[in-house]
Amino acid sequence: MTISPLAPKDFPDMPNVPGIRIATAHSGMRYENRDDLCLITMEDETRVAGVFTKSLCASAPVDWCKENLQYGYGRALICNSGNANAFTGAKGEQIANESAKAIASILSIPKDHIYLASTGVIGEVFEPIELTKHFDQMSESLEASGSASWKQAAEAITTTDTFPKGSTAKIKGTDAVVVGIAKGSGMIAPDMATMLAFIFTDINISQDNLQKVVQEATNDSFNSITVDSDTSTSDSVLVFATGKSQYDWDENSEAFEAAVQLVFKDLAHQIVKDGEGATKFVEIEVTGADTDQAAKKIAMSIANSPLVKTAIAAEDANWGRIVMAIGKSGEKANRDLLRIWIGSELVAKNGQQNPSYSEKKATQHLRKDNIKIRADIGVGNCQATVWTCDLTERYIEINAGYRS
Amino acid sequence: MTISPLAPKDFPDMPNVPGIRIATAHSGMRYENRDDLCLITMEDETRVAGVFTKSLCASAPVDWCKENLQYGYGRALICNSGNANAFTGAKGEQIANESAKAIASILSIPKDHIYLASTGVIGEVFEPIELTKHFDQMSESLEASGSASWKQAAEAITTTDTFPKGSTAKIKGTDAVVVGIAKGSGMIAPDMATMLAFIFTDINISQDNLQKVVQEATNDSFNSITVDSDTSTSDSVLVFATGKSQYDWDENSEAFEAAVQLVFKDLAHQIVKDGEGATKFVEIEVTGADTDQAAKKIAMSIANSPLVKTAIAAEDANWGRIVMAIGKSGEKANRDLLRIWIGSELVAKNGQQNPSYSEKKATQHLRKDNIKIRADIGVGNCQATVWTCDLTERYIEINAGYRS
Repeated sequence: MTISPLAPKDFPDMPNVPGIRIATAHSGMRYENRDDLCLITMEDETRVAGVFTKSLCASAPVDWCKENLQYGYGRALICNSGNANAFTGAKGEQIANESAKAIASILSIPKDHIYLASTGVIGEVFEPIELTKHFDQMSESLEASGSASWKQAAEAITTTDTFPKGSTAKIKGTDAVVVGIAKGSGMIAPDMATMLAFIFTDINISQDNLQKVVQEATNDSFNSITVDSDTSTSDSVLVFATGKSQYDWDENSEAFEAAVQLVFKDLAHQIVKDGEGATKFVEIEVTGADTDQAAKKIAMSIANSPLVKTAIAAEDANWGRIVMAIGKSGEKANRDLLRIWIGSELVAKNGQQNPSYSEKKATQHLRKDNIKIRADIGVGNCQATVWTCDLTERYIEINAGYRS
Repeated sequence: MTISPLAPKDFPDMPNVPGIRIATAHSGMRYENRDDLCLITMEDETRVAGVFTKSLCASAPVDWCKENLQYGYGRALICNSGNANAFTGAKGEQIANESAKAIASILSIPKDHIYLASTGVIGEVFEPIELTKHFDQMSESLEASGSASWKQAAEAITTTDTFPKGSTAKIKGTDAVVVGIAKGSGMIAPDMATMLAFIFTDINISQDNLQKVVQEATNDSFNSITVDSDTSTSDSVLVFATGKSQYDWDENSEAFEAAVQLVFKDLAHQIVKDGEGATKFVEIEVTGADTDQAAKKIAMSIANSPLVKTAIAAEDANWGRIVMAIGKSGEKANRDLLRIWIGSELVAKNGQQNPSYSEKKATQHLRKDNIKIRADIGVGNCQATVWTCDLTERYIEINAGYRS
């Protein structure tokens, strides 16, 4: 497997989060020669917040997590890669329930404080013992979180990812931290490329406030990326706050939000940079829209257009395709007020090509790894930014060849 | 250029429509060695109806046609391929206006009865004379419509199409006919693959009734196909009824509707069969939905999913991707009531894989050229059928390589 050309050079140096311990293991359910099971435990009083797929065919682990959020505390997270436990019916619920029960018993914690995530093939059932038989040993090998164990965990949760994804930020003015790991490589293939992100902090915060911060940061990060417009049955963002630092949310709310946003955005960008077949990282900014929702819908219409994405792959400044994508979004737009930039080059205004437009300059920008496209809709003051990658033959190769 | 493996064997034998004459010419604006201009004239009293792209950045010809529909009569249609005259601002309006003025003067007909269609590159302006200089000679070479001239016209309006598209049907119980030509090869690439369909009949019908028939038939044909989810700035369906037969709509309404639906559906299917890179023609039927709109949205979610389309290309019975596409549609669904068929093989029911499912049988069906996927949502009695093609590396090759 070739590592994405857009991958960061190294896995970041990630600190211990007080109260967090990590173990990984090899179940052998799908992958040879690598760990595919991850157990992360949190000390008591750890608050939890979550955002999940809007799919109406959500996986058993997603249903499980949603249900448990009402109890407010998170003591353990189990994640397996290779099988999504999605569309597995009553058997799927049994797998979730028995996994949680086993961990609860081993660690002597309430079942309602256990969180589950699964990523992999949809619709294949298996016996819970395939997972639970590893839990004893994993609980014995739990280690304090730290750079090496974060990387191990980030690797264990991957599927078709070509690199492990981690990010960290200090909460300004404190010694507390935000640390996150994520996986995802199509946005979002239901086989092996579900998006999962697990974030940990030692700040002291109520569940309500944590949920608000997470929801807002998700909108501007994980909910603003697309690789192929497909949405998984298993997408999950889970955030755990141990409260083991001396710092309270009340006095550090802005710094905490900033750190969470930084980590979320960094992880979201890494997922796009590992997009199946990606050779370009593309930022699409829409300004001058009627509403924020309209701005995002237009930006996503551009980001999801196969024709825009193939043009970017070809380094072809084919801006007519951007006009097309704006036009098809269905949102309020005005052909004659619309302006479009590729990089810093203004390509279109007043309902036609900018007279001083230089295709050469636009093409030069498209030769870079990091592409920026901006559209000003000209009808309002609202804006949105989303991120995507290009669409290459490699995407088809991966997805037309993968399972069989 | 390789002809699509899904192309019909021959262009159909198409009859003369009384009152219709045809001429084609070579403008040389983009294509060498082939005609790229088409003039079709209709005798007086010809009623016209039209359905157009919903894009908010519609082309100058689309704006022109929409405006003229209020006058009710169609006397001439000019179509050029190679340049879409879209996003061309005031110059685009001038091109449309001068083209119509020139034809009006040559044929001595009102400018308001002239219809225009352009397909090709977006955002490139040109001088109206590039088109109008050919009109004199074209008007002199007009011939009665018939099999040879219909084929000529169908070829002149193509861009990246790999075969010309025509279809015809008799209106049962009469000697009157419905004849149509169409072009389109991505649904719908803004460069060279806009969808255009021009349909002609000699039945006698009011404009209001014609518009109703056309709108309804469009919903179940041209508005139920997708190749790549992209919508052109130029999509146009124009229907002309000369009234030169002795048959009135009043006494033949059902037979006329049936013939129009037959021709529309046949042309729509031909467009999908010429989908860029297509190797499979796919029918997706959704039943048991809450509303007809929900059924169509779910069907389109499956039809537009790159992951479903790449799985079909690979002949991989990866039904988890179908579950994913239903789940992401956002429409009411119930995981445990959902049933999914590949061909006649029931793959999923009761929220999990059908115990007697045979992957071998599903795969056998996927080896065919014509694929059928059905999903019963299990929450209501409404249904929709849409058509698409698979997604192959060739699609990327065509669209990442095309313009430059």
